[in-house]
Formats: sequence, C-alpha cells, structure tokens
Amino acid sequence: MKEFDLIALLTKGLPANDSVVVGAGDDCAVLDLGIPDQLVLFKTDAVVEGVHFTGETPPRLIGRKALARALSDVAAMAGKPVAALVTLALPQNYSTERVTHIYEGLSTCAAQFGVAIVGGETTTNPERILISISLLGTVERDKQVRRSGAKAGDAIFVTGELGGSLAGRHLDFEPRLAEGRWLADHFKIHAMMDVSDGVAGDLRHILQASQVGAELLKSAVPISRAAKLRAKRNPKPPLIAALTDGEDFELLFTVASGSAVKLFDAWKQQFPKLRLSCIGKIVPGRDIILRDRYGAQKLEAYGYDHFA
Amino acid sequence: MKEFDLIALLTKGLPANDSVVVGAGDDCAVLDLGIPDQLVLFKTDAVVEGVHFTGETPPRLIGRKALARALSDVAAMAGKPVAALVTLALPQNYSTERVTHIYEGLSTCAAQFGVAIVGGETTTNPERILISISLLGTVERDKQVRRSGAKAGDAIFVTGELGGSLAGRHLDFEPRLAEGRWLADHFKIHAMMDVSDGVAGDLRHILQASQVGAELLKSAVPISRAAKLRAKRNPKPPLIAALTDGEDFELLFTVASGSAVKLFDAWKQQFPKLRLSCIGKIVPGRDIILRDRYGAQKLEAYGYDHFA
Repeated sequence: MKEFDLIALLTKGLPANDSVVVGAGDDCAVLDLGIPDQLVLFKTDAVVEGVHFTGETPPRLIGRKALARALSDVAAMAGKPVAALVTLALPQNYSTERVTHIYEGLSTCAAQFGVAIVGGETTTNPERILISISLLGTVERDKQVRRSGAKAGDAIFVTGELGGSLAGRHLDFEPRLAEGRWLADHFKIHAMMDVSDGVAGDLRHILQASQVGAELLKSAVPISRAAKLRAKRNPKPPLIAALTDGEDFELLFTVASGSAVKLFDAWKQQFPKLRLSCIGKIVPGRDIILRDRYGAQKLEAYGYDHFA
Repeated sequence: MKEFDLIALLTKGLPANDSVVVGAGDDCAVLDLGIPDQLVLFKTDAVVEGVHFTGETPPRLIGRKALARALSDVAAMAGKPVAALVTLALPQNYSTERVTHIYEGLSTCAAQFGVAIVGGETTTNPERILISISLLGTVERDKQVRRSGAKAGDAIFVTGELGGSLAGRHLDFEPRLAEGRWLADHFKIHAMMDVSDGVAGDLRHILQASQVGAELLKSAVPISRAAKLRAKRNPKPPLIAALTDGEDFELLFTVASGSAVKLFDAWKQQFPKLRLSCIGKIVPGRDIILRDRYGAQKLEAYGYDHFA
C-alpha cells in the first residue's frame, strides 16, 4: 500500500471535538483553544537514520533538519512557531557525543527562529536513531492559509529553486517563515503548502483539496543548479527532477491573477535574494498539464512516496 | 549513560521564550499562549515494538496504550486533553490490517476521553513499529499541579495498586484524568505526577524538584495481586516489585497533612472503586526512607531505567 493510500485509510472517521478547525490533511492541524485573536498550529514530523540522514551526516545538521522540516510546515500556514518537544529514539550503543551534537543543531535552529524547546522524551529504537519533533505555533485567525482555497484563474507561485536537494540542501535549507508571514500579511493568499515531496506531488494535494486543476509552463519552473548537475549522470531530465525530487522545503502558493504582478514586484523589494517564480495557473478540472511551445501534456509523474 | 543522566545533559540550556511556564522536567510542558483563563499542556510519548509491546500484543491494545500513556501525563497535571497527533513509523512489510487495528485502538481511546485526533505522519522504521503521540491539553491557570510543590509534613498518596503491570495492566490501564481533575478542583495538591517508572524512581523526581525527602511506611504500600503472584517465581519481593516495576500509570501526589483525612474520606465517596493509599510523608532531606515496625532503611532501589 502506498503512503498516501494508507493515510487516507487511517484518517477516515477520526474522533474530533469542538477545538478542531482543520484536522488531518493540511500542513498543520489548526485548533481553536480560545486565544482571543489567534488559532493554534500543531504539527509532528520525524526523521529516521538511513531514510532522512545517514551515519555520515554531521550530527548538528541532523538536529537542524529535524526541526526545520516542522518549521517549514508552520511557514506554509503563515504561522509563527512557539514551542517544540523532541522525541529521541536511540540504539543502546548510541554515542553521547553524537546525540549531544544533534541536540546542539536542534537548539541552534530553535533559537534562530525564536522557538522554545520545552522537553520531550528519550526512548529505545535498537537499530537506528529516530527523531520526532512536535511543534506548536500560532497564527492570527484571519491569516491562516490552507491548501483548500485555490480557485480557477489563480497564479501559481513557488519560492526558490527546485530539485536536487539530496546534494546537500535537504540538510541546511531555510524554513520560509518570514516569507510565509509576509505573504499572508500583505496579500490574500488562496492556498499554500510547503514543497516536501516535489511540486508534482504536492501541487496535487492543493488541487485535490481545492477541487481544481493546474497548467504549468515548463520554461517557468525554476530548476536548481544541483538538479541540472545531477541530470548529467542520471536518467531523470532536470525538469522532472525539479518537479519530483523531494525535500525542497520551498513555499508553493496561489493568489488571484489580478494580484500576481503586484505581489511579484513587492516580493523583489522585500526578498531580493530569494527567487520567486510564477510557474503556471489554476484551471478547472483535476489534472496537472505541462505546457511548452510545442503543446501540452498531462503530468503523470508523482512526487516522492515514502513507501514506493 | 543512564537515561536520566542523558536527559539532564541534553536539557541543559535549551532555548526558551515568553510562552514557557514549565519547560523540560515535568509530566508535561506548560505554555502560556494567551488563553484568558487557561494554560496549554504539551506532551509527547512513544511506544516501540519489542520494548513497550511485542509482535503478539493485540494491535488495538497497542494503539490504546500509546495514547493512554500520554493521557496519564495530562492527568498528572490536573489537565484536560484536547487533541493528539499520531506519528507512525513502520517497516516496509507492515500489515495493513494490524496498522488499521492499532489506529482503531487509538481512536476508541481518544473518543472515550474526548480527544480529537487531528493528523500526524507515517514514516519508515525498517525493523519495528514505533508510535509517537503528541498531545495538547489545557488546564485552568490556578489549578496546574507540578512536581515541585511538595513540602515537609505533606502526606503522600497513591491511587490504585502498584507493581506487576507487565502481567497485563500496562495494556489496558485507565489514565486517571477524572481523578486528577477532581483532586485539583477540591484540594490544594502540592505536587503530583503519574507513576510510569515505579514509585521508588518517580517519587525521587518529586523530591528532587521540591528539594525534600520522604518516609514511606512499608505496610501502607498497596501491592497489586499481579505483583504478589509474580513474586512466587521471581527473586524480587512483592514490596520491591510494587515500588520499582514500571508502567503503573497511577497518580502519586502530596497534600498538606491537615487535609489528608478530609481528602481520603471525600475520595471514598467520589471514587469508591479506586483504592487510595496514604503511603508516607514528606520530610526534610533528600532520601527515601522505608519504615516498618523493626526500624528504618534507606531505599536504594531505583525505578525502571530505559537504558539500564
């Protein structure tokens, strides 16, 4: 069974209560705990040795990555991260030095983004290290951005450059927290999520939640240098790498086409060093269509599936 | 390195911010997110195949245990659980049926205690199932109970019966949520925690946090039938089993001695089916002294250590 099929099976009919604003299926759960002007964001994310990092990965970067992944999800809801818990599952023969350095990476990243680390747990996982981060954040009630608000006609934007993250960027990417909040402060963002499994797969989550389709312009997709380099010794063409490689941790969002030029210009003023690309538009239907000057084709390639 | 030494090492100098009321080192972290009359409780807890359950454990009970453990920590802060996230780390060859039943156990337990399951994550852990629960709860600002408030002279109480949990109760214990809230509603509870690693070890956490010692009366310790039965084929005497076996998930708390009799009588009215025992008193010093009619001895036995 594929990961997304399993999730669909497990999240059917989960118990809810009055606090739930958004349950399973968005970047974060959204809860109303009675804070006058704010909602609470709640997220969990795990990294596993041999899957998300290796025995050779510098331990400070392991800790950084573990937290930054969850921060990226809070960014995608235009939220502000507040506090994290760290679950550390370790083999019996763990190296105290390595674990201490993992924690240093976590703490440095937390301090950088104003997040408190308020505890957690150590437990045993005999064969490999597993780190699960629980993160709480807040967002103004009128500014939360979900995946479900994309409308036909919207412009589709993505920050940064895509693909080839495995060459290094998956360990030291910047969660786009400032960018996510700036977007929600200044524009009516219809839908947003972070790109963790590749635009091709993640855009489908927005399309499904919003019941729309998308047309992407091949030449507009920002392909990273790493994806181009990797393509030289890899059968995957750079464009497909950019659309399907995992762990970009950029923001993917849609906005009414009438606001697109204004947003693009304001972005260049605000974040001159971070590329922003309009890669296409939301259309009726459910498919992702790739366009170039020769015509259009339906995109079948899927993003990264953890169980594929 | 022992688990508690590692935790002490890792939790030194963690980043904090204005939201933190209680950080690492209590049953739950406590956060002030600006809810007018309430604080937020934040907890994470994991169960691992081969450590907390086996391949033979009925899967619904695995799910139930995973959530109930975290609920027990919210109970220990006199809190009300609100919403949970489920991190499910699975081998590639997992059984869909088993995972579905684990989730059913989780959901049934969540519904029983009014908790919403608002999502989570599936990821890969090649050798064994690991389930980590993140739990949010709330508690009235004036009712949160910490580990650090025990005072010399306090009576020490424990709910239920202790020891021998491995015979079965570790899978179907009742988190003492109603009891924790009732206690905080009706009495000034000085310190409270849940007994997860055995009273001998857990009481030391209260003593350390409160900078006091304790005297326990051997004959007052409520020894479970399972601990007595197990003692017949085990070198551990029943009393030591009751004090050091893990996973009791009962409430251990202290209250001013002047309130002890009133509390005990009110408890019998309110919870006639759940035993409550006054097992001793808080004294100056740092040690745990065990008393019987022959004299006193210092308790050296420690509770369960995950890395021992």
